[in-house]
Amino acid sequence: MVMSPVVNTYPLSSYTFGTKEPKMEKDTSVADRLARMKVNYMKEGMRTSVEAILLVQEHNHPHILLLQIGNTFCKLPGGRLKPGENEIEGLKRKLTSKLGANSPSLVPDWQIGECVAIWWRPNFETIMYPYCPPHITKPKECKKLFLVHLSEKEYFAVPKNLKLLAVPLFELYDNVQRYGPVISTIPQQLSRFQFNMITT
Amino acid sequence: MVMSPVVNTYPLSSYTFGTKEPKMEKDTSVADRLARMKVNYMKEGMRTSVEAILLVQEHNHPHILLLQIGNTFCKLPGGRLKPGENEIEGLKRKLTSKLGANSPSLVPDWQIGECVAIWWRPNFETIMYPYCPPHITKPKECKKLFLVHLSEKEYFAVPKNLKLLAVPLFELYDNVQRYGPVISTIPQQLSRFQFNMITT
Repeated sequence: MVMSPVVNTYPLSSYTFGTKEPKMEKDTSVADRLARMKVNYMKEGMRTSVEAILLVQEHNHPHILLLQIGNTFCKLPGGRLKPGENEIEGLKRKLTSKLGANSPSLVPDWQIGECVAIWWRPNFETIMYPYCPPHITKPKECKKLFLVHLSEKEYFAVPKNLKLLAVPLFELYDNVQRYGPVISTIPQQLSRFQFNMITT
Repeated sequence: MVMSPVVNTYPLSSYTFGTKEPKMEKDTSVADRLARMKVNYMKEGMRTSVEAILLVQEHNHPHILLLQIGNTFCKLPGGRLKPGENEIEGLKRKLTSKLGANSPSLVPDWQIGECVAIWWRPNFETIMYPYCPPHITKPKECKKLFLVHLSEKEYFAVPKNLKLLAVPLFELYDNVQRYGPVISTIPQQLSRFQFNMITT
């Protein structure tokens, strides 16, 4: 038997959620976002972004924590690295900015785990691929998704303009319309892991 | 920087392909297949099947070897384990049966690598999920996909009733209609690997 890597997941109820000051989106439209991406690319080259898969469990099924903006758009917590920034340190910085309390002693000790997927943006467009397409020598963005191993108890401070949702894998699966290609295939990327559902 | 696991891929042209006696499908319809699955389940319990992702490269892009039956249906080489059989040994046995020459000295020394996905069949139906759905305590099948690391030179003997195709990742991606949910999301499951394209 080949052993699957084990991921401990704790009940949603074992975590505490508070609020903090709003974290506004830098862009108000997709066009603005792509234009800013282009300006940054000319200054700094390819963008590397890092995002976190934070797992909890409810009813013996894994759930992922997603940040909801407005009533529809969901995203993983994370963001763009600074030029030359280490991926692990950068993801910790972004997680603290998005979900950490203002009091440092309450911020989780983020345990960044396995890289589960890498997506490429070949052009200054919204479409991304899980490979760098042939003939693309200068991709514009590389996005890496990491599993983050949560402890049994954590405190999350959610920016007031956002909602934090625990979404079950069965809701994400085969639901590209609502969650987009990156988030909707997380269940497939996590399938090789064995979830140790801890009920406390 | 987090290093991605590296997979060496060699050009399709460095492999040799021959033919051998036909390997007929055990069932002639989906209904027959599900009925046989039910009979086997009652005798042996949950079916475990193992399938191989064999990678080659063309035009600097990874391709996967698929067996084509007739003009449409494609599948990964692999099959069902015998009760109690070791997964790695079972996959080697199935690969030799599907793609190995009759002369043992020509059969590849199959290097079974990483498990990249696990799919579950909750009922005696065609639909599978990349997780065991909640409330399913007795899944009917567990299917595991493994990367198989090929050497620079190999000889494959393809059963006369089948075709062996090298299909690029960009053809599989987002193509559930043609390849089904398991094969069409292989590009996402491989995205975390770094392909070392060796041109010989």
